[in-house]
Amino acid sequence: MTVSPSVPSERAAIVSAARRVGVFTEEEIRTVGELFDDYLRDAVGTGYNFLSYRVDNQVLGFACWGPTDLTRGAADLYWICAAPEAQGQGVGAALFHAVEEAVRSAGRWLIMIWTSGKPEYESARKLYERTGCELSARVADFFDHGDDLLLFTRRL
Amino acid sequence: MTVSPSVPSERAAIVSAARRVGVFTEEEIRTVGELFDDYLRDAVGTGYNFLSYRVDNQVLGFACWGPTDLTRGAADLYWICAAPEAQGQGVGAALFHAVEEAVRSAGRWLIMIWTSGKPEYESARKLYERTGCELSARVADFFDHGDDLLLFTRRL
Repeated sequence: MTVSPSVPSERAAIVSAARRVGVFTEEEIRTVGELFDDYLRDAVGTGYNFLSYRVDNQVLGFACWGPTDLTRGAADLYWICAAPEAQGQGVGAALFHAVEEAVRSAGRWLIMIWTSGKPEYESARKLYERTGCELSARVADFFDHGDDLLLFTRRL
Repeated sequence: MTVSPSVPSERAAIVSAARRVGVFTEEEIRTVGELFDDYLRDAVGTGYNFLSYRVDNQVLGFACWGPTDLTRGAADLYWICAAPEAQGQGVGAALFHAVEEAVRSAGRWLIMIWTSGKPEYESARKLYERTGCELSARVADFFDHGDDLLLFTRRL
């Protein structure tokens, strides 16, 4: 198993994992691909950064994070995703720890995690609780009517 | 007095107001100019949107807001700024109400306001409290060491 910065040839596997996990909208899945293209153009540590989780060179999950604009301390975790065939195998936790390391290496100390209160995001919420994140805010009807924002933070 | 969408010729007055108010960093002031250029390119209601507060065609303040990506309900208030010579005259409140109207017109119902806990932002915090905003989160050391995030929300 390896977790390290994604390479250009992994674009299709990453978008596919996002699609197959079944919780993201088409707009969100399209955004994953667009951010991946930005990542390939950006310098490391700026803009968007992708990490891949691989077993035998097969991508089983990915994470995307970036420094929060106009802050020195914060980074946003945009996506963390395990392919459906790899759920329950610690993919999320391994990716999360790799993001922590990357954020620390970038000289930042706070990870902001935007997630949904909907039932299908329960495993994500459990991951954030297990990895020492704090629930800093709950904002009702943020994503849509009946779809609340849960803002978790992880202090490094 | 008028408050309405900014016009291209107001760019210099807007950047100047941001500079003269004395609380923003050079990076933040440069960002105001860049977002204004994006605003001139974008369709109304998408991306970044600027509103100017004018007396006798003189720009005495501005606000910048935009729909929050990947949400149906939320909008971010990025900047609200009264020129130093116009402080205490209700410029901030007038701009804030114009943002509320614009967000409502865009079919959104929640304004997210990111501000700093530093003393020089006290008048901004007072404005948000007066206009019915709720303090949804306080995140220590977000902007920098000793510079906390105060996340206010306004539900329309």
